[in-house]
Amino acid sequence: MSVATQTLKKFVNAPEDVVKESLAGLAAAHPDVVRVDFENQIVVRAGSPVAGKVGLVSGGGSGHEPLHGGFVGLGMLDAACPGEVFTSPVPDQMLAATKAVDGGAGVVHIVKNYTGDVLNFKLAAELADDDGIEVESVLTNDDVAVEDSTWTAGRRGVGVTVLVEKIAGARAEAGGSLAEVAAVARRVNDRGRSFGVALTSCVTPAAGTPTFDIGADEMEFGVGIHGEPGRRREKLKPAAEIVAEMTDAILSDLSPAPGARLLAFVNGLGGTPLIELYLVYNELAKQLADRGHEATRNLVGNYITSLEMAGVSITLLELDDELTALWDAPVHTAALRWGT
Amino acid sequence: MSVATQTLKKFVNAPEDVVKESLAGLAAAHPDVVRVDFENQIVVRAGSPVAGKVGLVSGGGSGHEPLHGGFVGLGMLDAACPGEVFTSPVPDQMLAATKAVDGGAGVVHIVKNYTGDVLNFKLAAELADDDGIEVESVLTNDDVAVEDSTWTAGRRGVGVTVLVEKIAGARAEAGGSLAEVAAVARRVNDRGRSFGVALTSCVTPAAGTPTFDIGADEMEFGVGIHGEPGRRREKLKPAAEIVAEMTDAILSDLSPAPGARLLAFVNGLGGTPLIELYLVYNELAKQLADRGHEATRNLVGNYITSLEMAGVSITLLELDDELTALWDAPVHTAALRWGT
Repeated sequence: MSVATQTLKKFVNAPEDVVKESLAGLAAAHPDVVRVDFENQIVVRAGSPVAGKVGLVSGGGSGHEPLHGGFVGLGMLDAACPGEVFTSPVPDQMLAATKAVDGGAGVVHIVKNYTGDVLNFKLAAELADDDGIEVESVLTNDDVAVEDSTWTAGRRGVGVTVLVEKIAGARAEAGGSLAEVAAVARRVNDRGRSFGVALTSCVTPAAGTPTFDIGADEMEFGVGIHGEPGRRREKLKPAAEIVAEMTDAILSDLSPAPGARLLAFVNGLGGTPLIELYLVYNELAKQLADRGHEATRNLVGNYITSLEMAGVSITLLELDDELTALWDAPVHTAALRWGT
Repeated sequence: MSVATQTLKKFVNAPEDVVKESLAGLAAAHPDVVRVDFENQIVVRAGSPVAGKVGLVSGGGSGHEPLHGGFVGLGMLDAACPGEVFTSPVPDQMLAATKAVDGGAGVVHIVKNYTGDVLNFKLAAELADDDGIEVESVLTNDDVAVEDSTWTAGRRGVGVTVLVEKIAGARAEAGGSLAEVAAVARRVNDRGRSFGVALTSCVTPAAGTPTFDIGADEMEFGVGIHGEPGRRREKLKPAAEIVAEMTDAILSDLSPAPGARLLAFVNGLGGTPLIELYLVYNELAKQLADRGHEATRNLVGNYITSLEMAGVSITLLELDDELTALWDAPVHTAALRWGT
């Protein structure tokens, strides 16, 4: 351990070991839910593969925990492929995960729209096909803040990914076919939109310094989950105004039916305390009611994060009876659990 | 909204409204689990009181979310009394909560050892007694870092409080008498010890500036959940060394039986990302194994926080068959849920 790493203000040993040591902790804490294959650096559902069940695999750079490893388990993902912090996993990880969870009914890849993830999952799907495993890839691209971004052509995939993993996972658990599971995953992405705001930067273990500079009275309106720029940098405002603008940005793009039932997801980016997340949820519920919509389901907490970034994202998903029932279905993962 | 509050780097409106607006969000998000009595500023389990069941009430300053309001529900607390941020609730809140959850079998007050909380819960218990409600008070004082502190005579009550609420809540749900519920709560406190470390300060909404200053390469070893001083200020170290010292501090005081089964609770203080909390859990599991103990149950996440403080606390509870079974019993609250 060099002197330089001693001043990295984190609970780490060597920065290059953060991901694998954290995965070791996940495996030690939840042996009933997951196992970690350290050779391939993948998190696999305990007891995988489930014969006859469509497998669900996702992955991406680390630093967004509990996404994705915390969502492996009954009723959600079968495997997750964590890359290094803010770095795409490699095709070999994705192929190993695909093989590990193939129960003979095919595998769905849930891919957030970042160029590296998209390219590597595409290659992994081709390699899996060579091995006789049928793969359907589902892209999430729900972030309405910007078209194209630092590491993305088109819109970024963010909060809706959690909802896709839960709902598609429930469909697979209920015996859905490969086409059915992929279809409901795409439907969730199509009916979901997100918007994020950051108050502070994150600090990656490798860099040890803030990813971006931001003034003491400023916020990044439309931030990405790696600190990518949003729509604009502006002065902080009261939460009511920030949430109103976020809600407008999402609803003007989503255009839900009048009186729509929505799943309202208030997500902390890592460094914003829960007391503020519930305050934001209060504003969001009021905004939706003012517009004639109702939040019939919700999720409030840190689920797709950007290390210790202070910030919040809102995701709205237009529900119907099927999506509501799949959301309510039992889930047992490290980070999300009910009905079991 | 004054110009000054615009520069408070938080998602808030007026700082003086943070607690009540956050409670409104909690109520809006979890109507199946809790209701909020805004006149008395208390969080009450939906459907309270439960006839014939011992009621459990806790409370304390806000800023430690999800404690306590996030732990109200089936199998845990019947009511929580949130004070303003880092400020004790008043006896009137505690009395209102006690009355709201009294199902005729008496009420247990779970009180973290801070002078204001202790005095106000004592007065509330006397007032409840005047109203014919029998109250047993259980004090938590598990923090081995220091004797006496900024707001405490004796040891501070910290992480074990979450475990007391879960286990005593399960005992009450299973039909335990007032004496039985209080006894198991005291037993958990007696068999549990905690130790916390901070890397950064928190910022209260009222102050808008850090509670304490700390160097870029320093940690507060033994910090309290309001930023109270610990044993010493020292240079940051690798996580393995920090966790080893925390484990030593706890085990040398707890003196568990050789080969003890432990509940190992790695708690984030609010601003430390989950990737680090699992890395800390990995170190803790190794430390325990090296000492011949086994973590047969665990909890990893942000459960008793200090706003956005970067830091972590470890709580170890020496289990037995009864405590293990009560820990495993169903719980359904906003922040902790399984078995339902």
